[in-house]
Amino acid sequence: MLSEVKQEALKRLNYIEGHLAGVRRMIDEEAYCVDVLKQTFAVRRAIEKLEARVLEGHLRTHVVEGIHNGQHEQVLQELMELYNLAEK
Amino acid sequence: MLSEVKQEALKRLNYIEGHLAGVRRMIDEEAYCVDVLKQTFAVRRAIEKLEARVLEGHLRTHVVEGIHNGQHEQVLQELMELYNLAEK
Amino acid sequence: MLSEVKQEALKRLNYIEGHLAGVRRMIDEEAYCVDVLKQTFAVRRAIEKLEARVLEGHLRTHVVEGIHNGQHEQVLQELMELYNLAEK
Amino acid sequence: MLSEVKQEALKRLNYIEGHLAGVRRMIDEEAYCVDVLKQTFAVRRAIEKLEARVLEGHLRTHVVEGIHNGQHEQVLQELMELYNLAEK
Repeated sequence: MLSEVKQEALKRLNYIEGHLAGVRRMIDEEAYCVDVLKQTFAVRRAIEKLEARVLEGHLRTHVVEGIHNGQHEQVLQELMELYNLAEK
Repeated sequence: MLSEVKQEALKRLNYIEGHLAGVRRMIDEEAYCVDVLKQTFAVRRAIEKLEARVLEGHLRTHVVEGIHNGQHEQVLQELMELYNLAEK
Repeated sequence: MLSEVKQEALKRLNYIEGHLAGVRRMIDEEAYCVDVLKQTFAVRRAIEKLEARVLEGHLRTHVVEGIHNGQHEQVLQELMELYNLAEK
Repeated sequence: MLSEVKQEALKRLNYIEGHLAGVRRMIDEEAYCVDVLKQTFAVRRAIEKLEARVLEGHLRTHVVEGIHNGQHEQVLQELMELYNLAEK
């Protein structure tokens, strides 16, 4: 994992964990369901942004190297596996 | 929020927070990007299950009551707003 | 199904079918994969808009009537089933 | 586009168009909204399967060639653009 991706990923995780702590408080205080759901949707969006960053780092490093080293098959199978998991 | 929904939501949040702590460890230890992404996908799935439970509770309480009390318009607008946010 | 929902749904279907015919032409002419995918994403977005309209009509008619007629259970189970299918 | 991908994509399009024609009939006959939505969800799933096939073909051809030819930047930017569009 590239050092800059790691730093950004950890920063995004801090944000996500803080956001989830807010969701916990809302549920503890029995906030209105609709407001809770809007916050959990936002948490999922934040996780998707983290994923986009990790994926981009993956493409720029392992995928490029793998293809240069003749390991197409493994690299492409992993990408398709991720794609299919993400769609579920 | 129904008491049983609250209890289950908090239990699911415990699980999600533990799972995210695992993701943080993986990033700290510079785990393979593909493995990190598989875990963040699983976290999002867990949040979706939490949401399904909260939504079901919402339908069974506020939506049913709102419609009985003649507040269709507000209840339905909130549901459509949630639907549109969830699709994004 | 409300008459206005039906009319709008059919209009949206015309658009979706036309869009898909365009996708077919692109594949026939062996267009660049990335361009094909951008178009199929757009088709899915158009289907989601159609769905939002049908769902809204459903909420305004069957759901409101069902709850007024004491058929909560069936109405809510169908909504949760749709929600779970849509998330997949 | 690889010839085998093209053939499979066209076959899948036939299926999707037939499925959409069924949705049109349902709306014409004012079928129950919930049943219409289940079918449109299935159409979107079928489009996603078509996309997975086109994407796989893209990875196996343009992406591998682009990386071998030193065009990383364009190839990876396109993939990230697709990813971000698909998440929306």
